[in-house]
Amino acid sequence: MQKGPLLYTGKAKNVFGTDTPEVLWVEYTNQATALNGKRKEQIANKGQLNSAISDLLFKYLTKQGIVNHYLEQLSPTVQLVKQVKILPIEVVVRNYAAGHFVTKYNAPKMKHLVPNVHEFYFKDDALDDPFMNDEQITALEIATEAELVTLRGQADIVNVLLSNVFKQIGITLIDFKLEFGYTTDHQLILADELSPDNMRLIDDATGHSLDKDVFRNNLGDVTVGYQTVLDRLTTLFTEK
Amino acid sequence: MQKGPLLYTGKAKNVFGTDTPEVLWVEYTNQATALNGKRKEQIANKGQLNSAISDLLFKYLTKQGIVNHYLEQLSPTVQLVKQVKILPIEVVVRNYAAGHFVTKYNAPKMKHLVPNVHEFYFKDDALDDPFMNDEQITALEIATEAELVTLRGQADIVNVLLSNVFKQIGITLIDFKLEFGYTTDHQLILADELSPDNMRLIDDATGHSLDKDVFRNNLGDVTVGYQTVLDRLTTLFTEK
Ligand SMILES: Nc1ncnc2c1ncn2[C@@H]1O[C@H](COP(=O)(O)OP(=O)(O)OP(=O)(O)O)[C@@H](O)[C@H]1O
Ligand SMILES: Nc1ncnc2c1ncn2[C@@H]1O[C@H](COP(=O)(O)OP(=O)(O)OP(=O)(O)O)[C@@H](O)[C@H]1O
Ligand SMILES: [Mg+2]
Ligand SMILES: [Mg+2]
Repeated sequence: MQKGPLLYTGKAKNVFGTDTPEVLWVEYTNQATALNGKRKEQIANKGQLNSAISDLLFKYLTKQGIVNHYLEQLSPTVQLVKQVKILPIEVVVRNYAAGHFVTKYNAPKMKHLVPNVHEFYFKDDALDDPFMNDEQITALEIATEAELVTLRGQADIVNVLLSNVFKQIGITLIDFKLEFGYTTDHQLILADELSPDNMRLIDDATGHSLDKDVFRNNLGDVTVGYQTVLDRLTTLFTEK
Repeated sequence: MQKGPLLYTGKAKNVFGTDTPEVLWVEYTNQATALNGKRKEQIANKGQLNSAISDLLFKYLTKQGIVNHYLEQLSPTVQLVKQVKILPIEVVVRNYAAGHFVTKYNAPKMKHLVPNVHEFYFKDDALDDPFMNDEQITALEIATEAELVTLRGQADIVNVLLSNVFKQIGITLIDFKLEFGYTTDHQLILADELSPDNMRLIDDATGHSLDKDVFRNNLGDVTVGYQTVLDRLTTLFTEK
């Protein structure tokens, strides 16, 4: 597999083409951002940790029948994925109230949300990824009603599967963000990454954050929690 | 009818009790606000105009079978209304893209939204009335799913009726905000006001705004448009 031209420089990953059609070369970087990219830092080892965690979780989802973009790990920070046309909607699933959900709506911190809450954000950097409701999204033809049904349904399945995985290793999945995209044969599948950069994870034993909140809230070395997540996932998936 | 104690000082109305149970005394003031109350001005005659327009529109809706809080006009700026427990949700209906809908989502200005878009805002001054989706609202028990169904349904009927009224007088109803509340016998009914403070209205002949946008965008004397709306509504309803 040959690395091709740089296609996209993201906040946490660089995306390259390859010599194989429809296959992308994704490099996880050490960059951490907050405040929609306004704050940036390099954090040694973060790229590797996220890449390894994403690898384990995508493989697990694949085994459970969730069609997704993941192909293989090429090196500690490089993954091959199937190229998709990303639907410009970020899907957030919330199981417990945290982050913006608490500050914007004065929700009780860690309130258990039953059923879980879905939020859609319009992926548009110039607009700062605004939160939208279903009617706005369909009226502006950003996605169809049918697509939103698929997004909710897929996100819920991923939520059940990942929540169970994390529960088995003493971690609670508070919330997470997913991205989906279309393959050339018009399947809408799960893409992007599955890492503590895009999830909130709480250690059940200590109540500590094992995710990017440690960076957002300046609570110390974010990689300690990421390493804990990776170690526990590795143990869990090795046992099986 | 005796005026009672001041119950609430709003941005555009003062609300008093009366000597009759469940009847409120609402005084329309001349205050105009923008930027969620950060900009304030006194505009001679605005209270009277809004009161008169609200009077005509509520009476019309009542005739069309829409149960609402309106009772009667006591003086040019005072109305009696049935007291309700306001549901803390502002219902916005959009027929065409304007205002925030254009700036936040880069929607094409005046794009015809078919079907019309509904938005719910959590009435909470401390939180700056945040925009919420259905799942957030129900998860935080601000309203139930059934209530949201009622709000959408009622808002749609009001939309059809008011759009038709305005169309007959050469005006397009772009968008508007409604409030609803519970009567003591648990009916969820339309409340608050129906005026150009809470609607966008475009004169079909000139394309000019006949609403609060004139104030928001510093385009001159806002009451000129309000007077036009009142005059045309008066003519329409007098003819009939
Ligand atoms: N399978 C895929 N095919 C094509 N693009 C993908 C795929 N998976 C993820 N992407 C996109 O690659 C980029 C990954 O980079 P990164 O996560 O660093 O982006 P980001 O800074 O979060 O930017 P964005 O706001 O665009 O998501 C994202 O734009 C993501 O949508
Ligand atoms: N029938 C009613 N019974 C009780 N309260 C009402 C009724 N109709 C309207 N109200 C409330 O009376 C107040 C009217 O004042 P005004 O419109 O000036 O408020 P406002 O500045 O918009 O404030 P708010 O943010 O509370 O709506 C609002 O709080 C409105 O919700
Ligand atoms: Mg990303
Ligand atoms: Mg008001």
